[in-house]
Amino acid sequence: MNIEVRSGARREMIDITRAVAAAVEGAGNGLCHVYVPHTTAAVVINEHADPDVARDLTAAYEAMVPQIRFAHAEGNSDAHLMATLLGSSVTVPVEAGRLRLGTWQGIFFVELDGPRSRKVWVSLL
Amino acid sequence: MNIEVRSGARREMIDITRAVAAAVEGAGNGLCHVYVPHTTAAVVINEHADPDVARDLTAAYEAMVPQIRFAHAEGNSDAHLMATLLGSSVTVPVEAGRLRLGTWQGIFFVELDGPRSRKVWVSLL
Amino acid sequence: MNIEVRSGARREMIDITRAVAAAVEGAGNGLCHVYVPHTTAAVVINEHADPDVARDLTAAYEAMVPQIRFAHAEGNSDAHLMATLLGSSVTVPVEAGRLRLGTWQGIFFVELDGPRSRKVWVSLL
Repeated sequence: MNIEVRSGARREMIDITRAVAAAVEGAGNGLCHVYVPHTTAAVVINEHADPDVARDLTAAYEAMVPQIRFAHAEGNSDAHLMATLLGSSVTVPVEAGRLRLGTWQGIFFVELDGPRSRKVWVSLL
Repeated sequence: MNIEVRSGARREMIDITRAVAAAVEGAGNGLCHVYVPHTTAAVVINEHADPDVARDLTAAYEAMVPQIRFAHAEGNSDAHLMATLLGSSVTVPVEAGRLRLGTWQGIFFVELDGPRSRKVWVSLL
Repeated sequence: MNIEVRSGARREMIDITRAVAAAVEGAGNGLCHVYVPHTTAAVVINEHADPDVARDLTAAYEAMVPQIRFAHAEGNSDAHLMATLLGSSVTVPVEAGRLRLGTWQGIFFVELDGPRSRKVWVSLL
């Protein structure tokens, strides 16, 4: 199942927990695979109760990019870099059709070179 | 299956290889999914022969946190940051009920904001 | 199925997309698991159209290693560090025996302490 995501800034964390939960609703037990088919975006699991956490993460990802001269002509090697460090997929246990996340956990699409229209692929194993 | 972990420091790598191996013992072939349901902890696979490696990793994770002003009031945004970079799950092949790790590989629970009582969820696909 | 990789430098990104695609060819639908059984190497998904991206990533991984004193006597703690941040496996959807990657995505073996002979384990779920 596809989730459509529309980012509004160059770097942004977008909470997609509800959309992923809807995609696995009614399925049995297994594992939910959430996959980002882009090379300048990622997906992570972290706290979604306090929006300050997502803001801190976005700022920290930017601050961690080393100040070296990049060769890639599109000028977005920082986004490719953080995408490889954060990862292109997460997997979450599913029980009786419900995502089994920890108490404070949510699933975030991480935009690293927006704003853009993006896709997330969700499948159940 | 749940593994209970008790960390004794703010940042600490705890070798959980034996507990994960015990959880999949006797199962057939497939993939073992090791999931951390916390937002200030992670799980990684790396060398567990020389304990200096885990100590170096813990020190390096601390040194990589950028010196920016974080907004999150709990003061543990550094832990949320490293949790997203290290990841909330690992997957390891299982053959005839045995974890198929590389020669030097072990599975570590990574505490980033301890000491705390933690859980790890292990499932087999 | 095993893929053999031969790296030619200390840090190098090696495109293994074709070899992984060949390993799942003819299989049905599911998820492809690509696993690196080493502790100073990793596997990531990112752009493989412009080779400058891989070069930028390799340079950035080196630049991100903090300048602290490492204890591990082999002197390759930087490689262990980046291996834990990049990760030991990736998972990619498979449809009708074909890897379902995004348009710009390829799968890279990331050598962090070469040159060496390495292995990658591919399985289908």
